[in-house]
Amino acid sequence: MPPISLGDVEAAARRLEGVAHRTPVVTSRTLDSRAGARVYLKAENLQRGGAFKFRGAYNKISSLADAERSRGVAAFSSGNHAQAVALAASLHDTTAVILMPEDAPPAKVDATRGYGAEVVVYDRWTQDREALGAALAEERGLTLVRPYDDPLVMAGQGTAALELLDDAGDLDVLVTPVGGGGLAAGCATAGKGIRPELRVYGVEPEAGDDTRRSLAEGRRVEIPVPKTIADGLQATTPGKLTFEVNRELLDGVETVSDDELVAAMGFLFDRCKLVVEPSGAAALAALLASKLDVEGLRVGVILSGGNVGLARFRELMS
Amino acid sequence: MPPISLGDVEAAARRLEGVAHRTPVVTSRTLDSRAGARVYLKAENLQRGGAFKFRGAYNKISSLADAERSRGVAAFSSGNHAQAVALAASLHDTTAVILMPEDAPPAKVDATRGYGAEVVVYDRWTQDREALGAALAEERGLTLVRPYDDPLVMAGQGTAALELLDDAGDLDVLVTPVGGGGLAAGCATAGKGIRPELRVYGVEPEAGDDTRRSLAEGRRVEIPVPKTIADGLQATTPGKLTFEVNRELLDGVETVSDDELVAAMGFLFDRCKLVVEPSGAAALAALLASKLDVEGLRVGVILSGGNVGLARFRELMS
Repeated sequence: MPPISLGDVEAAARRLEGVAHRTPVVTSRTLDSRAGARVYLKAENLQRGGAFKFRGAYNKISSLADAERSRGVAAFSSGNHAQAVALAASLHDTTAVILMPEDAPPAKVDATRGYGAEVVVYDRWTQDREALGAALAEERGLTLVRPYDDPLVMAGQGTAALELLDDAGDLDVLVTPVGGGGLAAGCATAGKGIRPELRVYGVEPEAGDDTRRSLAEGRRVEIPVPKTIADGLQATTPGKLTFEVNRELLDGVETVSDDELVAAMGFLFDRCKLVVEPSGAAALAALLASKLDVEGLRVGVILSGGNVGLARFRELMS
Repeated sequence: MPPISLGDVEAAARRLEGVAHRTPVVTSRTLDSRAGARVYLKAENLQRGGAFKFRGAYNKISSLADAERSRGVAAFSSGNHAQAVALAASLHDTTAVILMPEDAPPAKVDATRGYGAEVVVYDRWTQDREALGAALAEERGLTLVRPYDDPLVMAGQGTAALELLDDAGDLDVLVTPVGGGGLAAGCATAGKGIRPELRVYGVEPEAGDDTRRSLAEGRRVEIPVPKTIADGLQATTPGKLTFEVNRELLDGVETVSDDELVAAMGFLFDRCKLVVEPSGAAALAALLASKLDVEGLRVGVILSGGNVGLARFRELMS
């Protein structure tokens, strides 16, 4: 039995209805001619909290038992999951304690505090966030909301693909960024559940290709913390559950360089009028850099988040 | 008889269906709390050609007699109307000749040429673009597509409000930038046609308040070419037809400074993940600067365009 099914994603969609934004699908003829394909961009940068992460966090928190939820939740995250859990907790009138790396982008830390969460910082080069998060959760009686390795979180993320297929019609290919693998697992489950012939590809930063390597070796490989501008894709190993799904359902994983991420962000700014963060541009970057064979096909692309401050954006673009 | 009716806007909507993007309506809780109102942003920066102008240009060109259309069209424009006419002409397999001021943003000139149009430059500080455009049209047998003072253009622009009211539900207030007045006239006609109690406000740059002054004096006032970063709102006098509509339907016109425009662009970037040009941010700028009394109301805001290049954006934000 796979960890999640299409039914789980559909149940998540019902929980999220009227709470999460049904983000728009953006198209551009300029993009189509650049990519040599008909491209449908799922603009999760316009999601609440600025990224797809809200879907999984809300689905998880809304599924907790009342007593459990009322004691509060905890999360560890480089940023977008933090904001998502903080926001989803505040919508459920419960408290959130968030562990964030001390070098997390200030915009993300501020936004997390802005949603009313307590932020606890740690050093991600020397400390083990999993162990820290577990200890914190136990000590305070909080429920840990994992960023990806949880069936309810994965199912929530899959609702992005559900909406995209619904709005864009029959797609041949779906491309999504891969960090811990929750978005990819959820989207692949939803996408292939609805349309078995759909090809689903993941995209990782060159320096952080833990899922690509793990698929090649047939087991979860651990890499050092990757140095990349894609701060949301710095996982060092795939999740246990997400890898179980992704090894079955992904048709492949491609990698992109930081320069290719910046080029995609610039293209999205100039031609699509969208602000997308480095991690969020990964899937499109692979397409623009011709890493995928999609000539003449109908391709869905998840723009997974937009949480990049103006100062950082300018720095990246200069 | 007013120059246009709700029926004209509805007819335009039928012509535009499947051709223009039905642009998304973006909401943000952060924006709502900043504005003290429930705000619905109509993201015309995501329209084809990067601005609402495509609606009017396409409606006009598609309504021409075949013989007329096949001889080609001409337009004079500081930018977005140029791209719109170029794109709409190319979709009708006809030629477009565009008069553009020699100081128009390079991104707009390039995009216009990119759509296959011939660009003719003029000096907007010394030359009369109306006279030049008319001469060019006559000389080459082209049909002049006016940027605003044409019922079919105005009706086309009004489809933005039609969609916004349809998607956002009952609004109390609608706010739109005002240049020549075509967007305001079309949107006010559509908005009040559907919902007579709707209040409709226009927003101009402080330096380019020709419509505000004209409404105050009860006649079309002419001002010098305004110096403002809002290059799309540099009209020196309202259109004859647009003023006829706007004097009847607008509940008021507010003005915003260049600094207020930049602040609104920054807010849209950081909090809404949208790239909006100075003119396109005018309506939101008025809201963020508390120029309108909208406390607790449901407010539709037209983000009219996003054609600002990355270099210019950085310059404005620095």
